[in-house]
Amino acid sequence: MEHFVHLNGTVVAGTEAAVPVMDRGFLFADAVYEGMGVLDGQLVDFLHHMERLERSLRELSIEVTQTADDWWCLLMELVERNEIDAGFAYLHITRGVGVERDYVYPEGLTPTVFAFVERHGAPGPSDAVAGIALATAPDLRWARRDIKTPNLLGQVLAKQHAAEQGCDEALMVTADGLVTECGSSSFFIVRDGALITRPLSHDILGGITRRAVIAVADRLDLAAEQRVVSLDEARAADEAFATAASTFVQPVVSIDGDPVGAGVPGPVALAVREEYLCTVRAGFYTPAEPCSSDD
Amino acid sequence: MEHFVHLNGTVVAGTEAAVPVMDRGFLFADAVYEGMGVLDGQLVDFLHHMERLERSLRELSIEVTQTADDWWCLLMELVERNEIDAGFAYLHITRGVGVERDYVYPEGLTPTVFAFVERHGAPGPSDAVAGIALATAPDLRWARRDIKTPNLLGQVLAKQHAAEQGCDEALMVTADGLVTECGSSSFFIVRDGALITRPLSHDILGGITRRAVIAVADRLDLAAEQRVVSLDEARAADEAFATAASTFVQPVVSIDGDPVGAGVPGPVALAVREEYLCTVRAGFYTPAEPCSSDD
Repeated sequence: MEHFVHLNGTVVAGTEAAVPVMDRGFLFADAVYEGMGVLDGQLVDFLHHMERLERSLRELSIEVTQTADDWWCLLMELVERNEIDAGFAYLHITRGVGVERDYVYPEGLTPTVFAFVERHGAPGPSDAVAGIALATAPDLRWARRDIKTPNLLGQVLAKQHAAEQGCDEALMVTADGLVTECGSSSFFIVRDGALITRPLSHDILGGITRRAVIAVADRLDLAAEQRVVSLDEARAADEAFATAASTFVQPVVSIDGDPVGAGVPGPVALAVREEYLCTVRAGFYTPAEPCSSDD
Repeated sequence: MEHFVHLNGTVVAGTEAAVPVMDRGFLFADAVYEGMGVLDGQLVDFLHHMERLERSLRELSIEVTQTADDWWCLLMELVERNEIDAGFAYLHITRGVGVERDYVYPEGLTPTVFAFVERHGAPGPSDAVAGIALATAPDLRWARRDIKTPNLLGQVLAKQHAAEQGCDEALMVTADGLVTECGSSSFFIVRDGALITRPLSHDILGGITRRAVIAVADRLDLAAEQRVVSLDEARAADEAFATAASTFVQPVVSIDGDPVGAGVPGPVALAVREEYLCTVRAGFYTPAEPCSSDD
């Protein structure tokens, strides 16, 4: 987290930003969030993130007055004030602060809005991409994984398990041996030159980078198939990669210590990565109206 | 929430208690909690709540230095300063405040400790108990419902649905038509004079009142059977009731608008309620050592 963050309409020092203990986000994880990449000081694939944010809010009946442009101005103010060239922008909206701790939510709460940005290194050239090691973990999450909420303990446990195995990311697997997705990224395999990833449903998060990669596949003349993959099929794939807003496209080199394909970043994954970065850089969003200074 | 709350070692006004936005409890629901009844100004079934708290902390590898007696002193200070005779005491412990937003948790964080108490009316005589109406809702929760964490969005949605149906509590049902438990209480049916409730597993929270009621059944010469019940069997039960720390034993009078049994609080449920209240009042915990004044 960089120095300046946004909290409820004000830019403040991150160390000073605090939310009331009765915030429903703290007591019930009654909240949604979005995270998006920052490249060249711009927000990556912004409108698709806004579409997903609006869907998450709608699914939970959290009402906000801000428009997509308001969120753009809010996040870009942080990007600029923190002088972020490449990194991550995070927006978190809770249902608001209750008077009592009651599961049933009162009408008319004012949502809590929190945002921060993080600085990362700019993505390097393809031949410098190291690839990531996955460790499998049971998918413990709830039944509405399509809503992006901070009910993230299942992912915390999966990614902690992966880290304890010396791995970079978790590959979450259902009790019947099917892959859902990674701990905080979507999962693709490459087989006979085609990209394969799990179809959208309540079982996975509709990844924004996942969606962009499916469009990229078309431009690269790669087939993109959406179907459920078993762990066995993933292990036997020619290549695999994970996609996420903060890390773009990451080739997977191993699962539970066994190499995937040649055990090095595969050519299809690297081509997808390069084309993805090129594509999103060509399409940064800018509102028609300039941000007002009191936003 | 009454006026004085506890936050990280200090008693403060509830309106002033706030946690840093980078608290893992806020960002990831990486936390546990306990809630217990207050009767006659004392904590109900305190040691069993502590046993469950320690289990939740252990399952998530959250390390605290406080003992059960420390928690007792902390909560009783709030009970006394807020002059609570009957109500609810709540204790929430997060893994702590991270520097970065990272699913993988750093070593050595200091857990955030928050507690509050609430005043309720003292439980009235059995003949004044109204009974509650249940509305069924799909059980959307994660696979480790035995750990008491604030990943509560599934329960929020279930109880909100029930409230919108004009009901008091949700009855959560799996996709295959089996009852797990209520939105924030355990569920029992009564059939041929026996109490029946779902056995402990990762599928339900091990309710402390549930446990006490099973012991009470024995003293009332009622059989207590632990097995999975279908929604159909629940609807056809002679009686049903829900148990929770804050509400003790509540007779269920309807499910989705259809009466359960005679559609009024049943005699077994009321007898269990009375014996439960009597039993817990006979067994309040007090530490061997007095609380130190700087606790």
